[in-house]
Amino acid sequence: MRATVIHASHDIRVEEVPDPVIQRPSDAVVRVVLSCICGTDLWAYRGVAAREPGQRIGHEFLGIVEEVGVDVRNCAVGDLVVAPFLWSDGVCSYCAEGLTTSCEHGGFWGSPGSDGGQGEAVRVPYADGTLVRLPSGAASDQRLLTALLTLSDVLGTGHHAAVGAGVRPGSTVGVVGDGAVGLCGVLAAKRLGADRIIALGRHQVRTDIARAFGATDVVAERGEAAVEAVLELTRGRGAPAVIEAVGTEQAMRTAVGIARDGGSIGCVGVPHGSDTGLELSEIFERNIALRGGVAPVRTYIPQLLPDILDGTIDPSPVFDLTVGLDGVPRGYKAMDERTALKVLIRY
Amino acid sequence: MRATVIHASHDIRVEEVPDPVIQRPSDAVVRVVLSCICGTDLWAYRGVAAREPGQRIGHEFLGIVEEVGVDVRNCAVGDLVVAPFLWSDGVCSYCAEGLTTSCEHGGFWGSPGSDGGQGEAVRVPYADGTLVRLPSGAASDQRLLTALLTLSDVLGTGHHAAVGAGVRPGSTVGVVGDGAVGLCGVLAAKRLGADRIIALGRHQVRTDIARAFGATDVVAERGEAAVEAVLELTRGRGAPAVIEAVGTEQAMRTAVGIARDGGSIGCVGVPHGSDTGLELSEIFERNIALRGGVAPVRTYIPQLLPDILDGTIDPSPVFDLTVGLDGVPRGYKAMDERTALKVLIRY
Repeated sequence: MRATVIHASHDIRVEEVPDPVIQRPSDAVVRVVLSCICGTDLWAYRGVAAREPGQRIGHEFLGIVEEVGVDVRNCAVGDLVVAPFLWSDGVCSYCAEGLTTSCEHGGFWGSPGSDGGQGEAVRVPYADGTLVRLPSGAASDQRLLTALLTLSDVLGTGHHAAVGAGVRPGSTVGVVGDGAVGLCGVLAAKRLGADRIIALGRHQVRTDIARAFGATDVVAERGEAAVEAVLELTRGRGAPAVIEAVGTEQAMRTAVGIARDGGSIGCVGVPHGSDTGLELSEIFERNIALRGGVAPVRTYIPQLLPDILDGTIDPSPVFDLTVGLDGVPRGYKAMDERTALKVLIRY
Repeated sequence: MRATVIHASHDIRVEEVPDPVIQRPSDAVVRVVLSCICGTDLWAYRGVAAREPGQRIGHEFLGIVEEVGVDVRNCAVGDLVVAPFLWSDGVCSYCAEGLTTSCEHGGFWGSPGSDGGQGEAVRVPYADGTLVRLPSGAASDQRLLTALLTLSDVLGTGHHAAVGAGVRPGSTVGVVGDGAVGLCGVLAAKRLGADRIIALGRHQVRTDIARAFGATDVVAERGEAAVEAVLELTRGRGAPAVIEAVGTEQAMRTAVGIARDGGSIGCVGVPHGSDTGLELSEIFERNIALRGGVAPVRTYIPQLLPDILDGTIDPSPVFDLTVGLDGVPRGYKAMDERTALKVLIRY
């Protein structure tokens, strides 16, 4: 089959690789129908996150089950399924309590020896714990299928941020980050009943999506000026619920700056940078909580799926460029240069 | 009157100072009956926390109301009252939601221009918001009175840590810090229904109190070895609820190390040190929440008071040395040299 391989910083290629086969009785092989490029893939692309030359890449996909191991019970050949960005066994104590990201047997697509999501097919370990079946009728509805793909990462990650931020009906929420995750954070906050959602962002294409997703206010300033603007919008107090969807020092500083005393920051931006930008003394004095981390999206898929199926939420607008598998390198370039928000890969 | 004054690092004196008088209609003057020395006073004593020469010191006291301003409604001359370690107006939006530590008009005893708790009397700003009346009968019961004094700081701070750590009935809790706050954290965790409480400490006087307060296990190791020991006690997983009651880099590292993935650290140790000891990447990967900060003990006093009065909890054993006002410098020395856990000042 053909799949995306990362050889070095800025060197992404689509190459012939071995076809995936069932290796263990709990495996399934999924023929990919849709996948995409994630903001976190760019950390590998830019050489910030280390990868061995020749590793596969991509961790968001949905597709059709092509083959199952003898122990697989929850899906069958021909089923349309979506995969979360980590596989998990579904039975360990962490999985039992919903923290699938800490699964004892969990792993990340594209790690050495495993398939990545940006290829024609994927061997899925622990298929029963990992995959979630989708209504087969969705396969013929491209808009719906695109929306469902966000269940594999960005929608669940945005939801995790909103949960960590403590969003409740009536909440005022500040959202740092105008990438696909930040936008999904807006959508998730709206879904959880937030009254007021202040999105920080300066690119109109993105802030227009934020408004469509439920943002009531947009702040185009950055850094200190952004903090001032949010304080002005909140009678000098800041937002009790803050979503941090970037992971840089500057973003964390902004998140703390716009948080109300006693509030919570739901952090889902993977921490990057020489230091964290976190003034522990300040969050201590102001009783600001930090909650979040790698999102256990497998747990969230069954909660979020019905709202996509019945049209309550439609996260599909986070994709603004579609490529075929051959176009993946171009897709990375577009996201790296910020000419694309999030790139869909159609097979 | 006579009061404790800090002139420089390790230079604490008891001196004649002006008698407190009502300055504003919302003030009260309280004649101090009991006060004490706090671990955080030591940061000033050691010169780590800056103080202007001549500042008063001490922030925990209870006493008898001696005079009230014309606007004071909630207490009257002759009432026995306890003060939290910060004054607060009781009416601003932060006070209304219980975050009295962020009160718009709040302040800290002993800050320039205000009385400290380690003196014969104290002018109390915003007396209605700040003071809590105690049953007058308690004045004749020295053991009870001593227990009630912990409402001004250490008990409420331990409780804040337990709340931040998410302690619930049945919880397993790890407690970093064997000072008075850590010990009160043990007591608070027990009161909230924790099943298993693992106290880290190596001084038997302190760990005996921890056991009396509800600790089921004591770990005497420090640093990496302490983490190993707690993991061994928790089947390799760590404690879902962790209380951090020290504030040093090493303590924060230990707290993260003993936390179970998906758990919460209730932080009440005032952050000290050149960096925070916090590996943001680790807490992110493991979905560990940080919650806590300066404890809004004013809010907790009415919740904790009944349990002291009816004997459900007795925090008085955290005091192991009693001095008169003249003995305060000796009390600081004893706590600084760790020959005393917490020093009671009887007038």
